[in-house]
Amino acid sequence: MTSESSDDAVTAESNRHFDLVMQILICISLVQFSIDTLPNLQPRTRAFLEYVEDFIMVVFTIEYVIRLYRGGFQFAKSFYGIVDLVAILPFYLSMGFDLRALRAFRLLRLVLLLKLARYNRAVARFHRAFLIAREEFILFAFAALILLFLAAVGIYYFENEAQPEAFASVFHSLWWAVATLTTVGYGDVYPVTVGGKVFTTLLLVVGLGIVSIPAGLIASALGEAREIEGKFEPEES
Amino acid sequence: MTSESSDDAVTAESNRHFDLVMQILICISLVQFSIDTLPNLQPRTRAFLEYVEDFIMVVFTIEYVIRLYRGGFQFAKSFYGIVDLVAILPFYLSMGFDLRALRAFRLLRLVLLLKLARYNRAVARFHRAFLIAREEFILFAFAALILLFLAAVGIYYFENEAQPEAFASVFHSLWWAVATLTTVGYGDVYPVTVGGKVFTTLLLVVGLGIVSIPAGLIASALGEAREIEGKFEPEES
Amino acid sequence: MTSESSDDAVTAESNRHFDLVMQILICISLVQFSIDTLPNLQPRTRAFLEYVEDFIMVVFTIEYVIRLYRGGFQFAKSFYGIVDLVAILPFYLSMGFDLRALRAFRLLRLVLLLKLARYNRAVARFHRAFLIAREEFILFAFAALILLFLAAVGIYYFENEAQPEAFASVFHSLWWAVATLTTVGYGDVYPVTVGGKVFTTLLLVVGLGIVSIPAGLIASALGEAREIEGKFEPEES
Amino acid sequence: MTSESSDDAVTAESNRHFDLVMQILICISLVQFSIDTLPNLQPRTRAFLEYVEDFIMVVFTIEYVIRLYRGGFQFAKSFYGIVDLVAILPFYLSMGFDLRALRAFRLLRLVLLLKLARYNRAVARFHRAFLIAREEFILFAFAALILLFLAAVGIYYFENEAQPEAFASVFHSLWWAVATLTTVGYGDVYPVTVGGKVFTTLLLVVGLGIVSIPAGLIASALGEAREIEGKFEPEES
Repeated sequence: MTSESSDDAVTAESNRHFDLVMQILICISLVQFSIDTLPNLQPRTRAFLEYVEDFIMVVFTIEYVIRLYRGGFQFAKSFYGIVDLVAILPFYLSMGFDLRALRAFRLLRLVLLLKLARYNRAVARFHRAFLIAREEFILFAFAALILLFLAAVGIYYFENEAQPEAFASVFHSLWWAVATLTTVGYGDVYPVTVGGKVFTTLLLVVGLGIVSIPAGLIASALGEAREIEGKFEPEES
Repeated sequence: MTSESSDDAVTAESNRHFDLVMQILICISLVQFSIDTLPNLQPRTRAFLEYVEDFIMVVFTIEYVIRLYRGGFQFAKSFYGIVDLVAILPFYLSMGFDLRALRAFRLLRLVLLLKLARYNRAVARFHRAFLIAREEFILFAFAALILLFLAAVGIYYFENEAQPEAFASVFHSLWWAVATLTTVGYGDVYPVTVGGKVFTTLLLVVGLGIVSIPAGLIASALGEAREIEGKFEPEES
Repeated sequence: MTSESSDDAVTAESNRHFDLVMQILICISLVQFSIDTLPNLQPRTRAFLEYVEDFIMVVFTIEYVIRLYRGGFQFAKSFYGIVDLVAILPFYLSMGFDLRALRAFRLLRLVLLLKLARYNRAVARFHRAFLIAREEFILFAFAALILLFLAAVGIYYFENEAQPEAFASVFHSLWWAVATLTTVGYGDVYPVTVGGKVFTTLLLVVGLGIVSIPAGLIASALGEAREIEGKFEPEES
Repeated sequence: MTSESSDDAVTAESNRHFDLVMQILICISLVQFSIDTLPNLQPRTRAFLEYVEDFIMVVFTIEYVIRLYRGGFQFAKSFYGIVDLVAILPFYLSMGFDLRALRAFRLLRLVLLLKLARYNRAVARFHRAFLIAREEFILFAFAALILLFLAAVGIYYFENEAQPEAFASVFHSLWWAVATLTTVGYGDVYPVTVGGKVFTTLLLVVGLGIVSIPAGLIASALGEAREIEGKFEPEES
């Protein structure tokens, strides 16, 4: 309504453009990271990928310096300040190390995903929904863990003798329990004895619900989070 | 109440019959398309299929001409005008080309499915439900993409050395991530190292919800869409 | 409150006992049917199973005759009258036929399950829930069918050349589409080309929701059905 | 507000610490139980595991004696009194038996999980949610059982001739039905005939909902249970 709010709108507009550019750069960086893992890359391609990495890292460094200049120590010790630092540090540190150490360092670059989250307002709602359903979530994490353990112990006792390799211990059986109760069912291990099959049947009848309920919990929590946002942050007005 | 509305009812009735006939023709066309891909078909069967195709395409052409006559340029440049054209065009174009180009052309016939949607009122509600849950949907598409990427990077680091073929790069690992997080679990690739199995376990505990929540979102959105329709379009009155 | 309602209570009580006995007999009959399919059964066991079958069929025949005597032609032409007849008829007809025809006849015995439904009040609520969500259900059956078809056509074009056996036609590909979109993923057929894998990824991202939404629809419809029952049939009063 | 409630707070605080310690001991005991099943353990490790077991069992015995002293016969015949006894009894009984009997005895130690439940308030809500949705649950257990049976009979008739080993009887087919309808799909058995594949397709279209609905039922029941708790037990006041 006043020139002030108009100025704000201009700033918000330019901020939005800046955020979009940074998000695109992060995505390019992650794609470059992925392509880099491809075997049998041509030296020319590898050189090009390195140029891309250098360019993006320089941009991120400039961004970090500007933010540091504006926010000072307050920014440096904030969560996103540390994320920004960790995202660019490995690039500079890796110059002084050999190639082997580089490999583990590179994984640190994935903190870029946390940077991506900063620019994305949607993540806030996701976080809110998680807080709403937190209690039920812990309840089901608890129930699911007990179920997985019981499943592993049960199948161990039924299948250990018939398949001493695949079900060598409760821990080996746990891998089967995870693949079965999540219904992934790779088929690398499965019961062969009658007892094991009956046990699996009973387990699945009881267990499927416990493993798949959390999804329903978050879905409804997300609905509640949307309502709360609707009350406190009227859209475009 | 008046004779006018009675006339409307007659028109609506005959329209409904016309729509039904067109829908059946589309379905026959798609069945013919499918049977055509069967290997070792008898020449007689293939000839019959061709007759069916010719007949249906002629009907669709007549329909297009009538609609064009009625709607003029307005229709020609509308969404369904273009769909109608694309659905019949390959048939006429293919006469002038050899068999190889025909194959790709044929896929264009699938736009017939969009024609099917026009005749079907239910698709409108589906579309409305999508609009209601759009924001959450984008949020979860975002979360799911990040999760898939993290899953692929993680399993690549754990399994690359043990299975250099199956987990050759982050992109190869992505195939495993898709098959695992959707719980399809074909069993063509699966982790064999202890680290990879522990990672998969944690990933599934965190990830199953994120991948399966969208279904819950649409289900509730569809309920809302039904309520809205109930308010604005009273049934049978 | 009066002696009449007390008499009714006695009748209801004895009816409930009768229903329970019939349900147990049906279950025994189905178990006997299942055991009968086991290969390498001892002649003595097979003879015992036959005795059980004879006994149950005689009981069902007596029940049918009593119901026919009470209900007359009205019962004979009702849905459950036909079910009752079909359930016992194969037993008597099979006496005059050889063993091969018997096999197909036996499957008719499964109509016993419909008898089981009569005695079970819970099935009524299930039926009511289905009616409430019918419209959405048809909508999703429609969407799921189109999706399955598109999935089959898509994978056929990507994988046909690489795996001419497994993806020989759109119909062969449909089997893969069913196993994939329901996330069963047996692992007997799966894409091996890069194009096929990318297509599967996109398909699963879009398709999982469409296939798994109906469950959410029924769950909420069942809740509505419960509310309606709560209004019209006050419990235990 | 008064010193009494302050005393109560102190007691509640110390109780909470005691409960936490007992829960941690139970978890350590279960981990020790699992590690014990690992093959090729070093004698030194095995000795250490035995020390851990001895220590925990002594603590549980002391706990049992204290509870017995406080609660008397009332405690001894209560549910948790029996659980506590069963959890420690095998340890003392196993001293007098040889190693083979020990194996089955050890499984009894899993009742410790029930002890864990006592200390955990969240289990109460889970129990309450189950009671709310009990009726629907029984309904779906019923529907799922019938569906599994029909699936097994159906696939038996389609696949028995083509795969006499995998689908030898209705019971063998039941294993396939469980793996398919829960969408686990190990891939150890799957239909190969056209009839069997068409049957599986129809079965999955109908059956997926029935098997996955219970999860939605519990999710909504859990929401109701939360509301009820919110009314009767105001938080932190």
